[in-house]
Amino acid sequence: MQYFVGDQEYFKGIGKIAFEGKGSKNPLAFKYYDAKKMIGGKTMAEHLRFATAYWHSFCADGTDPFGSSTMDFPFRKSDPYANAVAKADAAFEFFTKLGTPYYCFHDVDASPDSEDAVAYEKTFHKIADELLARQKASGVKLLWNTANVFTHPIYMNGAATNPDFNVVARAAVQVKNSLDVNVKLGGQNYVFWGGREGYMSLLNTDMKREQDHLARFLTMARDYGRSIGFKGTFLIEPKPMEPTKHQYDYDAATTIGFIKEYGLDKDFKCNIEANHATLAGHTFDHDLLVSANHGMLGSVDANQGDPINGWDTDEFPTDVYATTMAMLVILRHGGLGSGGLNFDAKRRRNSTDLEDLFIAHIGGMDSFALGLEVAHKIIDEGLFDTFVKNRYASFDAGDGKKFEDGSMDLASLAAIGRTVQIEKRSGKQEYLNNLMNSYLFG
Amino acid sequence: MQYFVGDQEYFKGIGKIAFEGKGSKNPLAFKYYDAKKMIGGKTMAEHLRFATAYWHSFCADGTDPFGSSTMDFPFRKSDPYANAVAKADAAFEFFTKLGTPYYCFHDVDASPDSEDAVAYEKTFHKIADELLARQKASGVKLLWNTANVFTHPIYMNGAATNPDFNVVARAAVQVKNSLDVNVKLGGQNYVFWGGREGYMSLLNTDMKREQDHLARFLTMARDYGRSIGFKGTFLIEPKPMEPTKHQYDYDAATTIGFIKEYGLDKDFKCNIEANHATLAGHTFDHDLLVSANHGMLGSVDANQGDPINGWDTDEFPTDVYATTMAMLVILRHGGLGSGGLNFDAKRRRNSTDLEDLFIAHIGGMDSFALGLEVAHKIIDEGLFDTFVKNRYASFDAGDGKKFEDGSMDLASLAAIGRTVQIEKRSGKQEYLNNLMNSYLFG
Amino acid sequence: MQYFVGDQEYFKGIGKIAFEGKGSKNPLAFKYYDAKKMIGGKTMAEHLRFATAYWHSFCADGTDPFGSSTMDFPFRKSDPYANAVAKADAAFEFFTKLGTPYYCFHDVDASPDSEDAVAYEKTFHKIADELLARQKASGVKLLWNTANVFTHPIYMNGAATNPDFNVVARAAVQVKNSLDVNVKLGGQNYVFWGGREGYMSLLNTDMKREQDHLARFLTMARDYGRSIGFKGTFLIEPKPMEPTKHQYDYDAATTIGFIKEYGLDKDFKCNIEANHATLAGHTFDHDLLVSANHGMLGSVDANQGDPINGWDTDEFPTDVYATTMAMLVILRHGGLGSGGLNFDAKRRRNSTDLEDLFIAHIGGMDSFALGLEVAHKIIDEGLFDTFVKNRYASFDAGDGKKFEDGSMDLASLAAIGRTVQIEKRSGKQEYLNNLMNSYLFG
Amino acid sequence: MQYFVGDQEYFKGIGKIAFEGKGSKNPLAFKYYDAKKMIGGKTMAEHLRFATAYWHSFCADGTDPFGSSTMDFPFRKSDPYANAVAKADAAFEFFTKLGTPYYCFHDVDASPDSEDAVAYEKTFHKIADELLARQKASGVKLLWNTANVFTHPIYMNGAATNPDFNVVARAAVQVKNSLDVNVKLGGQNYVFWGGREGYMSLLNTDMKREQDHLARFLTMARDYGRSIGFKGTFLIEPKPMEPTKHQYDYDAATTIGFIKEYGLDKDFKCNIEANHATLAGHTFDHDLLVSANHGMLGSVDANQGDPINGWDTDEFPTDVYATTMAMLVILRHGGLGSGGLNFDAKRRRNSTDLEDLFIAHIGGMDSFALGLEVAHKIIDEGLFDTFVKNRYASFDAGDGKKFEDGSMDLASLAAIGRTVQIEKRSGKQEYLNNLMNSYLFG
Ligand SMILES: [Co+2]
Ligand SMILES: [Co+2]
Ligand SMILES: [Co+2]
Ligand SMILES: [Co+2]
Ligand SMILES: [Co+2]
Ligand SMILES: [Co+2]
Ligand SMILES: [Co+2]
Ligand SMILES: [Co+2]
Repeated sequence: MQYFVGDQEYFKGIGKIAFEGKGSKNPLAFKYYDAKKMIGGKTMAEHLRFATAYWHSFCADGTDPFGSSTMDFPFRKSDPYANAVAKADAAFEFFTKLGTPYYCFHDVDASPDSEDAVAYEKTFHKIADELLARQKASGVKLLWNTANVFTHPIYMNGAATNPDFNVVARAAVQVKNSLDVNVKLGGQNYVFWGGREGYMSLLNTDMKREQDHLARFLTMARDYGRSIGFKGTFLIEPKPMEPTKHQYDYDAATTIGFIKEYGLDKDFKCNIEANHATLAGHTFDHDLLVSANHGMLGSVDANQGDPINGWDTDEFPTDVYATTMAMLVILRHGGLGSGGLNFDAKRRRNSTDLEDLFIAHIGGMDSFALGLEVAHKIIDEGLFDTFVKNRYASFDAGDGKKFEDGSMDLASLAAIGRTVQIEKRSGKQEYLNNLMNSYLFG
Repeated sequence: MQYFVGDQEYFKGIGKIAFEGKGSKNPLAFKYYDAKKMIGGKTMAEHLRFATAYWHSFCADGTDPFGSSTMDFPFRKSDPYANAVAKADAAFEFFTKLGTPYYCFHDVDASPDSEDAVAYEKTFHKIADELLARQKASGVKLLWNTANVFTHPIYMNGAATNPDFNVVARAAVQVKNSLDVNVKLGGQNYVFWGGREGYMSLLNTDMKREQDHLARFLTMARDYGRSIGFKGTFLIEPKPMEPTKHQYDYDAATTIGFIKEYGLDKDFKCNIEANHATLAGHTFDHDLLVSANHGMLGSVDANQGDPINGWDTDEFPTDVYATTMAMLVILRHGGLGSGGLNFDAKRRRNSTDLEDLFIAHIGGMDSFALGLEVAHKIIDEGLFDTFVKNRYASFDAGDGKKFEDGSMDLASLAAIGRTVQIEKRSGKQEYLNNLMNSYLFG
Repeated sequence: MQYFVGDQEYFKGIGKIAFEGKGSKNPLAFKYYDAKKMIGGKTMAEHLRFATAYWHSFCADGTDPFGSSTMDFPFRKSDPYANAVAKADAAFEFFTKLGTPYYCFHDVDASPDSEDAVAYEKTFHKIADELLARQKASGVKLLWNTANVFTHPIYMNGAATNPDFNVVARAAVQVKNSLDVNVKLGGQNYVFWGGREGYMSLLNTDMKREQDHLARFLTMARDYGRSIGFKGTFLIEPKPMEPTKHQYDYDAATTIGFIKEYGLDKDFKCNIEANHATLAGHTFDHDLLVSANHGMLGSVDANQGDPINGWDTDEFPTDVYATTMAMLVILRHGGLGSGGLNFDAKRRRNSTDLEDLFIAHIGGMDSFALGLEVAHKIIDEGLFDTFVKNRYASFDAGDGKKFEDGSMDLASLAAIGRTVQIEKRSGKQEYLNNLMNSYLFG
Repeated sequence: MQYFVGDQEYFKGIGKIAFEGKGSKNPLAFKYYDAKKMIGGKTMAEHLRFATAYWHSFCADGTDPFGSSTMDFPFRKSDPYANAVAKADAAFEFFTKLGTPYYCFHDVDASPDSEDAVAYEKTFHKIADELLARQKASGVKLLWNTANVFTHPIYMNGAATNPDFNVVARAAVQVKNSLDVNVKLGGQNYVFWGGREGYMSLLNTDMKREQDHLARFLTMARDYGRSIGFKGTFLIEPKPMEPTKHQYDYDAATTIGFIKEYGLDKDFKCNIEANHATLAGHTFDHDLLVSANHGMLGSVDANQGDPINGWDTDEFPTDVYATTMAMLVILRHGGLGSGGLNFDAKRRRNSTDLEDLFIAHIGGMDSFALGLEVAHKIIDEGLFDTFVKNRYASFDAGDGKKFEDGSMDLASLAAIGRTVQIEKRSGKQEYLNNLMNSYLFG
């Protein structure tokens, strides 16, 4: 199969996206992403583990806080179930034409929501069967799914942290079914993004009680997941704010602290999104590195923000400095494991050509492919790593090593310090920045 | 003793600052801070535990990145030791005229720095004796001291996290002596602010190794402090950035995660500075509350930032909304314990009248006194607390309580959720904001 | 008439909001806003000229970028025209129960939108007649109206600055009819907010040509307005970003530069919104003052932002520091003229009780009433103004006056400068901050 | 002359920096900047007109708000005059070894400051003669100079906007002499950066009067400059804040509005600094384009900021996306005219090797050279420009042209709008971003 086509072809005129290489001016071809190209013993595809996000690609219609829908989807049907099936056809056609081996979705992206929980469950499982059939037909796999417990008005005061127990219970319906579906579809991870798990005002909030509830809920979900055979990784996706004034899973460090405090660290890792890290005052690679340092780098939502705009712009990643820095962390960490690079990114509201959906993803994939190549070369040649290793060499032996090993007390350390001769050592930041440019631009 | 005067009176024309109450237009009198006034069983002074900061008040000379010194200090002497003694005289005169029962200092604020470690130590201990004499004479106590391991150029790449072991050892000289002096002076806490413990560039940094070194260093300092009889609290003061691009102790949550990860939570708490919290994307009261929720609210650096300016402006606190929110957290937490409200705040560079130093502190003390009165009344009348308690009432009994207690699994929770009727419940944020104004403005 | 009621009463159980004064705990009463109270020769109502915004109050349903509608409006009807009429009834009932003497609206807030321009026009004029009847019945007046040329997808690339002339022409339909309706309703001002007049990317934008088009469009609208008898002020409302990456009317200074560059300064002034000023890196009062200094302070969108969140949160104003600073500028400027204080503010998404709409407005009105009282007292007592006047006294006579008058050249000025003795003069910022608190808190 | 050497060689071991081209790993060689390489009819050197900044390169010693000096300069002398001469030798050696054809300085960078105005003047003119001799010997030219009226404490409340006339007069001494020296040295431009021309608090400020004073001062300086034969361009350098809370020359648009309002537009243009634009909420190329669109693009301070840090980090420019976008504006504008690319950039405080000063500049020069090459190719191939031109084609003829020409009124425009068929046209932002990457990365 070159690509999946369901009842009808939705992206007509666009075939399988090919690698044409540098110099190609074809907007519908890859310039840098060559799925089967070997980089250090693995193919690019194996390194990058790209996933398409169902919500932005097949649900988000260009609505913004000041504007209504701009996007025309070719698969829209008036009947909700038929619409969901057509959407699934279009999605798998898109995955296979584009060449992302994974996908990700929220329950209500794929399956019609319903206030009637029984109807919701029944439909969701039917749709899951539809997805499973298309997974089998296409070979595309589920990187992760999640429950959308933030859009519906009942979640306006939170889901697991809602002050009303009934809402917490209703959220459990969605999470339980999402876990069931995950197992059915062989999902490799399961994600929690706490879009409403935070506060709008501290005046009406019991933060401690809400965080305890959140941990309780996650613990119950973990136990349930394991009980039904989910073997993958649970992921929490940090974000500092938006839609709430302040979210509890602020950033990687906060989330890791929370995970450990409540004893969830055997099962939970972080899903780091670039634009969420930058909103929290960090670079993308900072939050990746914090996660990696704690063994908590689970997966990545690959996008980029606009430092001029103070909200989550969820742009497709095209800044190759950022993708290179990200891939350096990922490669040094030993790769993405069961995680992947999920494009939690949306076309701009005015990118209304259907081909723009392909072009946007191609740009993201090419940017990470370039980042991978540069990062691999950097690690391979070792200039940066050697520089860093040498910089800390005083801890590799002697008193420095004793300090590092913990076999020295403060008085002894101070005794050494009383007589040391300290040499001024440049941090060489400009040299390293220039070196980075020479890797990027030849 | 009405106030301390050393060899000579330095703040001539200014006597003991008196409480004159509302309506006074005397800039050198308190309008709201009445030290002995009882608020809920304690005096204002006991609640607020104000401290003057040696560095801003007696060392900082108005220099900024684009301008040189503007401040004239009446106590300046050319001989470093004589200067330090005169400064101590002026400081204790200031403390006692103003009425702050505590003070805080870095080693090199009070005692001349020296590249010669032996000279540094000897002088520091002599100055400590001078300080001790003035403590006894005045009754002013040491809230905390700390070692300045960030100003000297040897610390340009970090102190405990410096890639050069020799620098780490040299920093230990300052920390060891600062702990010795703390014990001599009966300090109630000891602070670490990691001004250079972070990075300028990830390209030259081994973050994991640096954080391990930081924890090692703190552990050694803790052990040494305990070994010499320090009974107080060790405090880490978070700050997200400045002077580094990114500091490791980013905010309260990050710092608490670090403290726990390295097993330091029996001895270490947070020293929360308002302007550092806001630079990290939080409100002041948020970071106080995060600390309090973890039993980690150790002490407070009371100042305020400018949301328009992206650096640490360290202004004297005058926003009574902020002081009220802070005092709400502090009172609900049971007070400041062995901590206090230290004015880590500086007069603006162009506030060059000597009286401005008094006026600035008076404004800060009055603002917290007002905040204390309002917060106490709010708690006393219980409208906010009752509102919040009622909001979560569904967890006080029945299934909600079972959820909270952990005696329910996800499937049972979802079973409940399948049939719940969910009522829409307003968060009443505008009502609560208006109520807050009615407490503030009568 | 105590208050207007149309076909049915929509806000049942809530009567005319009364002034109960300080100490009242009734959330549905004014504590500080006493409409008829005289402040310096004018009533509070005359000073403050409050307006209710149709869009937030009667159209916005709580939708946010991550959540769907939460608000239940009692007047919703399925037929668009009937819905518009019911909405008008509810709106005028609200205005008169609350006591805002003015209102503001976009064309499509009040009247159903239609892709068919002729249908749009016809309906709009019919609705305008309905509004006019209610204005007459209630005495409520139109502060300003405007055309919403940003929500419909055709405006995704701009309205007056759209690269497609057809869209510009289509926008003209809305603006022309909005001006016609303004004259019919006796509007005192007419507003342009350029929500899509900016860019998403400079790569696809001809900024100069777009700005020329914008000016051309405004000139044509001005000429048309004057030709049909519009005597009021045209207003441009600056905003730096959102929904675009970057809007042309960035802030007051940029907008005033634009107005002058294109010769529109006889007819156009600024409509300053608090939250837009803060998004652009200014305080609210800064942008008011810049406008006032240029004779360009036309009207005010009274709300407040959250310095922690980087988007337009459009909160009801409750920070009395900010309202006082704003009222200081407005009073010194001689008042609002034909402008007013329009609550371009929305209840939080989870403030879903119908009474919250009243409570939110009451808080905003009380906060500005308090600000007015404090500002009036400050000006009346003259401490601040005298301080400032004295600070610049060296320019009131002698060489300073000659400098100011322009009758001195640089060489002469430098000749004076060669021998001056410069005294250090404190800016007294902390003194002034404390003085402000003493005005606010007694 | 290969390079200038004065009394002694200061940068020993570093010779003339050579172009070695892509692939070179020599940190002290250019990889992209080949001064004599022709790009579209001009050499790279002619296009880029690089200047070294005296202050950062030869004066700034690594001091930051939390740390003291780290830099060792080889030319330091204890006698101020001898120090200034040695510094000049070192500077011209640096300019010629590096190959920047221009330099820029503040009066007190080059010449010792003195409270005695007569001594200041006399010394300054002697130093100017020294500089002139070195200009002649080396061929290096003065891009611009300026007066530092912000560092000395007398300027703490402003220079031209100081509330004290005496300070304004004293500032005139520095500006007059700086203009005299400019003419002596054949300076091509003269710059005003209003570091203290703004406010710390609106409570003590008469903004209108201060801005009038600023304009008066600039007018006098303009007249004086012209009277002594200065033929170059006067430049104002916008910056939004720091060291003040808010500076009057906030950004390009504000500055241009000010220049025009006070009738200075025949003589004054903007000096755009990248990091100042970003602090004001704009991209670098945005502020360049705003200036260019108004014929006000005078010169450029080439550096970059850190979007994570909210202050002016003044880093050497290494982001080739930004340099390419900047060069696109500059090339389309017809080049830099009498302006240049001045590296208002500093080594990081811990980049303490003397060679780091070279390396930092080399990185900046290479990054702009790369940007120039890419921008030239982009313009040459015309894909972007054609795309943009086509996007606005509806205004090139017919009704669109009539609209643009102003020969249409609103009623006619609306009449057209009533019947238009509007086609949805994608903005193609992702396509253009990908195209940009294909230009950058081959
Ligand atoms: Co996102
Ligand atoms: Co995401
Ligand atoms: Co502090
Ligand atoms: Co601080
Ligand atoms: Co707004
Ligand atoms: Co508005
Ligand atoms: Co500059
Ligand atoms: Co700068």
